[in-house]
Amino acid sequence: MNATAALPAYRATIEPAYIDYNGHLRDAYYGLIFSYAIDDVMDHLGLGPAYRERTGCTLYTLEMHLHYLHEVKASDELTVETSILDADRKRFHAGSVFRCTRLPEPVAIADAMLLHVHQGEKVTTAPFPAEIEARLQALKLTPEALAAFGPISRRIELRRR
Amino acid sequence: MNATAALPAYRATIEPAYIDYNGHLRDAYYGLIFSYAIDDVMDHLGLGPAYRERTGCTLYTLEMHLHYLHEVKASDELTVETSILDADRKRFHAGSVFRCTRLPEPVAIADAMLLHVHQGEKVTTAPFPAEIEARLQALKLTPEALAAFGPISRRIELRRR
Repeated sequence: MNATAALPAYRATIEPAYIDYNGHLRDAYYGLIFSYAIDDVMDHLGLGPAYRERTGCTLYTLEMHLHYLHEVKASDELTVETSILDADRKRFHAGSVFRCTRLPEPVAIADAMLLHVHQGEKVTTAPFPAEIEARLQALKLTPEALAAFGPISRRIELRRR
Repeated sequence: MNATAALPAYRATIEPAYIDYNGHLRDAYYGLIFSYAIDDVMDHLGLGPAYRERTGCTLYTLEMHLHYLHEVKASDELTVETSILDADRKRFHAGSVFRCTRLPEPVAIADAMLLHVHQGEKVTTAPFPAEIEARLQALKLTPEALAAFGPISRRIELRRR
Protein backbone atom coordinates (compact mmCIF):
# COMPACT_ATOMS: atom_id res chain seq x y z
CA MET A 1 0.00 0.00 0.00
CA ASN A 2 1.05 3.56 -0.67
CA ALA A 3 1.80 4.55 2.93
CA THR A 4 1.15 8.25 2.42
CA ALA A 5 -2.32 7.48 1.05
CA ALA A 6 -3.30 4.87 3.64
CA LEU A 7 -6.54 5.13 5.59
CA PRO A 8 -6.33 5.02 9.40
CA ALA A 9 -6.86 1.57 10.94
CA TYR A 10 -10.13 0.87 12.74
CA ARG A 11 -9.93 -0.60 16.24
CA ALA A 12 -12.85 -2.98 16.76
CA THR A 13 -14.80 -3.49 19.97
CA ILE A 14 -15.81 -7.15 20.44
CA GLU A 15 -19.05 -7.09 22.44
CA PRO A 16 -19.88 -10.23 24.49
CA ALA A 17 -23.02 -10.66 22.32
CA TYR A 18 -20.76 -11.11 19.27
CA ILE A 19 -19.47 -14.48 20.57
CA ASP A 20 -21.49 -17.48 19.38
CA TYR A 21 -22.06 -21.03 20.63
CA ASN A 22 -18.75 -22.06 19.03
CA GLY A 23 -16.89 -19.76 21.46
CA HIS A 24 -15.68 -17.35 18.80
CA LEU A 25 -16.76 -14.23 16.96
CA ARG A 26 -19.95 -15.10 15.06
CA ASP A 27 -19.50 -14.90 11.27
CA ALA A 28 -21.95 -12.02 10.82
CA TYR A 29 -20.19 -9.80 13.37
CA TYR A 30 -17.08 -9.64 11.19
CA GLY A 31 -19.52 -7.97 8.79
CA LEU A 32 -20.72 -5.54 11.44
CA ILE A 33 -17.14 -4.62 12.37
CA PHE A 34 -16.38 -4.17 8.65
CA SER A 35 -19.49 -1.97 8.32
CA TYR A 36 -18.31 0.23 11.21
CA ALA A 37 -14.83 0.40 9.65
CA ILE A 38 -16.45 1.63 6.42
CA ASP A 39 -18.30 4.32 8.42
CA ASP A 40 -14.88 5.48 9.61
CA VAL A 41 -13.61 5.52 6.02
CA MET A 42 -16.62 7.63 5.02
CA ASP A 43 -15.78 10.13 7.78
CA HIS A 44 -12.17 10.19 6.60
CA LEU A 45 -13.21 10.78 2.97
CA GLY A 46 -15.59 13.58 3.95
CA LEU A 47 -18.76 11.49 3.47
CA GLY A 48 -19.79 11.51 7.15
CA PRO A 49 -22.92 12.81 8.92
CA ALA A 50 -22.35 16.51 8.04
CA TYR A 51 -21.99 15.59 4.34
CA ARG A 52 -25.18 13.49 4.42
CA GLU A 53 -27.05 16.34 6.12
CA ARG A 54 -25.79 18.96 3.64
CA THR A 55 -26.16 17.03 0.38
CA GLY A 56 -28.75 14.32 1.00
CA CYS A 57 -26.15 11.92 -0.42
CA THR A 58 -24.76 8.78 1.18
CA LEU A 59 -23.32 5.36 0.31
CA TYR A 60 -25.31 2.18 -0.21
CA THR A 61 -23.61 -1.21 -0.09
CA LEU A 62 -24.19 -3.29 -3.22
CA GLU A 63 -22.24 -6.41 -2.25
CA MET A 64 -20.17 -7.64 0.65
CA HIS A 65 -17.86 -10.64 0.77
CA LEU A 66 -16.20 -12.05 3.89
CA HIS A 67 -13.36 -14.60 4.07
CA TYR A 68 -12.86 -16.23 7.44
CA LEU A 69 -9.23 -17.26 7.92
CA HIS A 70 -8.81 -17.72 11.69
CA GLU A 71 -11.07 -17.77 14.72
CA VAL A 72 -11.31 -14.56 16.73
CA LYS A 73 -11.89 -14.81 20.49
CA ALA A 74 -13.58 -12.38 22.87
CA SER A 75 -10.19 -11.46 24.36
CA ASP A 76 -8.54 -10.60 21.02
CA GLU A 77 -7.49 -7.11 20.05
CA LEU A 78 -8.83 -6.71 16.56
CA THR A 79 -7.96 -3.99 14.06
CA VAL A 80 -9.20 -3.49 10.53
CA GLU A 81 -7.02 -1.92 7.82
CA THR A 82 -9.01 -0.70 4.84
CA SER A 83 -7.79 0.06 1.34
CA ILE A 84 -9.50 1.52 -1.71
CA LEU A 85 -9.16 -1.30 -4.24
CA ASP A 86 -10.87 0.54 -7.08
CA ALA A 87 -13.09 3.56 -7.69
CA ASP A 88 -15.04 5.24 -10.45
CA ARG A 89 -17.30 8.32 -10.56
CA LYS A 90 -20.06 6.81 -8.39
CA ARG A 91 -18.66 3.73 -6.72
CA PHE A 92 -15.70 2.43 -4.82
CA HIS A 93 -14.51 -1.05 -3.95
CA ALA A 94 -13.17 -1.23 -0.41
CA GLY A 95 -11.09 -4.09 0.97
CA SER A 96 -10.25 -4.66 4.63
CA VAL A 97 -7.70 -6.87 6.34
CA PHE A 98 -8.62 -8.00 9.87
CA ARG A 99 -5.67 -8.52 12.18
CA CYS A 100 -5.44 -9.56 15.81
CA THR A 101 -2.34 -9.21 17.96
CA ARG A 102 -2.30 -12.97 18.75
CA LEU A 103 -1.48 -14.05 15.16
CA PRO A 104 0.99 -12.85 12.54
CA GLU A 105 -1.34 -13.45 9.56
CA PRO A 106 -4.72 -11.83 8.85
CA VAL A 107 -7.73 -13.42 10.57
CA ALA A 108 -10.22 -12.30 7.92
CA ILE A 109 -10.49 -10.33 4.72
CA ALA A 110 -13.60 -8.46 3.64
CA ASP A 111 -14.47 -6.47 0.55
CA ALA A 112 -17.50 -4.50 -0.52
CA MET A 113 -18.78 -2.41 -3.40
CA LEU A 114 -20.29 0.89 -2.33
CA LEU A 115 -22.49 3.16 -4.44
CA HIS A 116 -22.95 6.91 -3.97
CA VAL A 117 -26.66 7.82 -3.98
CA HIS A 118 -28.96 10.76 -3.38
CA GLN A 119 -31.80 10.00 -0.96
CA GLY A 120 -34.69 12.08 -2.27
CA GLU A 121 -38.27 10.97 -2.75
CA LYS A 122 -36.63 8.23 -4.81
CA VAL A 123 -33.10 6.98 -4.25
CA THR A 124 -30.96 7.80 -7.31
CA THR A 125 -27.29 7.22 -8.07
CA ALA A 126 -25.13 10.34 -7.96
CA PRO A 127 -21.53 11.09 -8.99
CA PHE A 128 -19.10 11.90 -6.18
CA PRO A 129 -18.21 15.57 -5.72
CA ALA A 130 -14.90 16.28 -7.52
CA GLU A 131 -12.86 16.54 -4.31
CA ILE A 132 -14.13 13.17 -3.04
CA GLU A 133 -13.42 11.54 -6.40
CA ALA A 134 -9.89 12.99 -6.30
CA ARG A 135 -9.38 11.65 -2.75
CA LEU A 136 -10.54 8.18 -3.85
CA GLN A 137 -8.23 8.18 -6.87
CA ALA A 138 -5.30 9.27 -4.66
CA LEU A 139 -6.07 6.46 -2.17
CA LYS A 140 -6.55 3.75 -4.81
CA LEU A 141 -4.01 0.96 -4.53
CA THR A 142 -1.38 0.66 -7.23
CA PRO A 143 -1.70 -2.47 -9.43
CA GLU A 144 1.23 -3.99 -7.47
CA ALA A 145 -0.37 -3.26 -4.08
CA LEU A 146 -3.71 -4.59 -5.34
CA ALA A 147 -2.07 -7.84 -6.48
CA ALA A 148 -0.51 -8.20 -3.01
CA PHE A 149 -3.72 -7.37 -1.16
CA GLY A 150 -4.86 -10.95 -0.49
CA PRO A 151 -7.89 -13.11 -1.28
CA ILE A 152 -10.53 -10.62 -2.38
CA SER A 153 -13.91 -11.77 -3.51
CA ARG A 154 -14.20 -14.77 -5.74
CA ARG A 155 -16.99 -17.12 -6.56
CA ILE A 156 -17.83 -19.40 -3.63
CA GLU A 157 -17.91 -22.97 -4.85
CA LEU A 158 -16.95 -26.53 -3.96
CA ARG A 159 -14.04 -27.58 -6.10
CA ARG A 160 -13.83 -31.35 -6.36
CA ARG A 161 -10.44 -32.81 -5.50
CA MET B 1 -36.47 -26.16 -5.87
CA ASN B 2 -37.59 -29.68 -5.11
CA ALA B 3 -40.59 -28.78 -2.92
CA THR B 4 -40.52 -32.00 -0.91
CA ALA B 5 -36.89 -31.40 0.00
CA ALA B 6 -37.19 -27.69 0.82
CA LEU B 7 -35.96 -26.31 4.12
CA PRO B 8 -38.46 -24.34 6.22
CA ALA B 9 -38.33 -20.55 5.73
CA TYR B 10 -36.82 -18.41 8.50
CA ARG B 11 -38.86 -15.46 9.72
CA ALA B 12 -36.48 -12.62 10.65
CA THR B 13 -36.89 -10.20 13.53
CA ILE B 14 -35.69 -6.70 12.60
CA GLU B 15 -34.50 -5.10 15.83
CA PRO B 16 -34.52 -1.27 16.02
CA ALA B 17 -30.71 -1.38 16.43
CA TYR B 18 -30.44 -2.99 12.97
CA ILE B 19 -31.57 0.25 11.25
CA ASP B 20 -28.72 2.59 10.29
CA TYR B 21 -28.36 6.33 9.59
CA ASN B 22 -29.69 5.73 6.07
CA GLY B 23 -33.05 4.65 7.53
CA HIS B 24 -32.80 1.04 6.39
CA LEU B 25 -31.45 -2.30 7.53
CA ARG B 26 -27.66 -1.91 7.91
CA ASP B 27 -25.71 -4.07 5.45
CA ALA B 28 -24.13 -6.24 8.15
CA TYR B 29 -27.48 -7.16 9.72
CA TYR B 30 -28.51 -9.00 6.57
CA GLY B 31 -25.51 -11.13 7.46
CA LEU B 32 -26.71 -11.62 11.04
CA ILE B 33 -30.18 -12.62 9.84
CA PHE B 34 -28.54 -15.01 7.36
CA SER B 35 -26.40 -16.42 10.19
CA TYR B 36 -29.51 -17.06 12.31
CA ALA B 37 -31.24 -18.67 9.31
CA ILE B 38 -28.25 -21.01 8.97
CA ASP B 39 -28.59 -21.90 12.68
CA ASP B 40 -32.16 -22.96 11.85
CA VAL B 41 -30.91 -25.03 8.93
CA MET B 42 -28.42 -26.72 11.26
CA ASP B 43 -31.26 -27.61 13.65
CA HIS B 44 -33.28 -28.96 10.73
CA LEU B 45 -30.36 -31.08 9.49
CA GLY B 46 -29.69 -32.49 12.96
CA LEU B 47 -26.59 -30.34 13.60
CA GLY B 48 -28.08 -28.32 16.46
CA PRO B 49 -27.04 -27.90 20.12
CA ALA B 50 -27.65 -31.57 21.09
CA TYR B 51 -25.46 -32.73 18.19
CA ARG B 52 -22.68 -30.31 19.15
CA GLU B 53 -22.87 -31.49 22.76
CA ARG B 54 -22.80 -35.20 21.81
CA THR B 55 -20.11 -35.14 19.11
CA GLY B 56 -18.00 -32.02 19.72
CA CYS B 57 -18.64 -31.23 16.05
CA THR B 58 -20.08 -28.06 14.56
CA LEU B 59 -19.96 -25.90 11.43
CA TYR B 60 -17.51 -23.08 10.75
CA THR B 61 -18.20 -20.49 8.07
CA LEU B 62 -15.42 -20.22 5.49
CA GLU B 63 -16.90 -17.48 3.31
CA MET B 64 -20.03 -15.39 3.13
CA HIS B 65 -21.28 -13.25 0.28
CA LEU B 66 -24.19 -10.81 0.41
CA HIS B 67 -25.97 -9.13 -2.51
CA TYR B 68 -28.13 -6.15 -1.62
CA LEU B 69 -30.99 -5.76 -4.10
CA HIS B 70 -33.54 -3.55 -2.32
CA GLU B 71 -33.70 -1.54 0.87
CA VAL B 72 -35.39 -3.19 3.85
CA LYS B 73 -37.24 -0.98 6.35
CA ALA B 74 -37.89 -1.50 10.05
CA SER B 75 -41.57 -2.19 9.30
CA ASP B 76 -40.92 -4.92 6.70
CA GLU B 77 -41.79 -8.54 7.23
CA LEU B 78 -38.70 -10.37 6.16
CA THR B 79 -38.35 -14.09 5.48
CA VAL B 80 -35.29 -16.04 4.38
CA GLU B 81 -35.59 -19.15 2.20
CA THR B 82 -32.48 -21.29 2.25
CA SER B 83 -31.37 -23.93 -0.24
CA ILE B 84 -28.48 -26.36 -0.29
CA LEU B 85 -26.61 -25.34 -3.45
CA ASP B 86 -23.91 -27.98 -3.16
CA ALA B 87 -22.45 -30.39 -0.64
CA ASP B 88 -19.58 -32.81 -0.24
CA ARG B 89 -18.39 -35.02 2.64
CA LYS B 90 -17.33 -32.13 4.90
CA ARG B 91 -18.82 -28.95 3.48
CA PHE B 92 -22.00 -27.49 2.15
CA HIS B 93 -22.77 -24.34 0.19
CA ALA B 94 -25.96 -22.68 1.39
CA GLY B 95 -27.83 -19.98 -0.52
CA SER B 96 -30.62 -17.82 0.89
CA VAL B 97 -33.18 -15.60 -0.77
CA PHE B 98 -34.45 -12.69 1.37
CA ARG B 99 -38.03 -11.65 0.66
CA CYS B 100 -40.25 -9.01 2.18
CA THR B 101 -44.02 -8.83 1.73
CA ARG B 102 -43.79 -5.26 0.27
CA LEU B 103 -41.98 -6.33 -2.93
CA PRO B 104 -42.46 -9.14 -5.44
CA GLU B 105 -38.73 -9.67 -6.09
CA PRO B 106 -36.04 -10.74 -3.60
CA VAL B 107 -34.51 -7.95 -1.50
CA ALA B 108 -31.20 -9.74 -0.99
CA ILE B 109 -29.39 -12.95 -1.77
CA ALA B 110 -26.72 -14.47 0.46
CA ASP B 111 -24.53 -17.51 0.14
CA ALA B 112 -21.95 -19.13 2.36
CA MET B 113 -19.61 -22.10 2.47
CA LEU B 114 -19.76 -24.05 5.72
CA LEU B 115 -17.23 -26.59 6.96
CA HIS B 116 -17.89 -29.42 9.40
CA VAL B 117 -15.24 -29.46 12.15
CA HIS B 118 -14.43 -31.19 15.42
CA GLN B 119 -13.62 -28.79 18.25
CA GLY B 120 -11.02 -30.64 20.30
CA GLU B 121 -7.79 -29.27 21.66
CA LYS B 122 -7.23 -28.31 18.03
CA VAL B 123 -10.03 -27.65 15.57
CA THR B 124 -9.92 -30.30 12.82
CA THR B 125 -12.13 -30.90 9.78
CA ALA B 126 -14.44 -33.90 10.08
CA PRO B 127 -16.68 -35.75 7.61
CA PHE B 128 -20.43 -35.48 8.19
CA PRO B 129 -22.10 -38.52 9.78
CA ALA B 130 -23.64 -40.65 7.00
CA GLU B 131 -27.24 -39.65 7.81
CA ILE B 132 -26.39 -35.93 7.65
CA GLU B 133 -24.54 -36.38 4.38
CA ALA B 134 -27.58 -38.24 2.98
CA ARG B 135 -29.90 -35.43 4.12
CA LEU B 136 -27.68 -32.83 2.44
CA GLN B 137 -27.56 -34.81 -0.81
CA ALA B 138 -31.35 -35.18 -0.74
CA LEU B 139 -31.77 -31.42 -0.19
CA LYS B 140 -29.23 -30.39 -2.84
CA LEU B 141 -30.80 -28.38 -5.65
CA THR B 142 -31.07 -30.01 -9.06
CA PRO B 143 -28.86 -28.40 -11.76
CA GLU B 144 -32.00 -26.69 -13.16
CA ALA B 145 -33.03 -25.30 -9.77
CA LEU B 146 -29.46 -24.17 -9.13
CA ALA B 147 -29.36 -22.31 -12.46
CA ALA B 148 -32.64 -20.58 -11.53
CA PHE B 149 -31.49 -19.72 -7.99
CA GLY B 150 -30.32 -16.16 -8.70
CA PRO B 151 -27.11 -14.15 -8.39
CA ILE B 152 -24.92 -16.27 -6.16
CA SER B 153 -21.42 -15.22 -5.32
CA ARG B 154 -19.24 -13.78 -7.99
CA ARG B 155 -16.15 -11.65 -7.94
CA ILE B 156 -16.88 -8.09 -6.82
CA GLU B 157 -15.36 -5.69 -9.32
CA LEU B 158 -15.94 -2.43 -11.16
CA ARG B 159 -16.64 -3.20 -14.78
CA ARG B 160 -15.89 -0.21 -16.98
CA ARG B 161 -18.75 0.78 -19.27
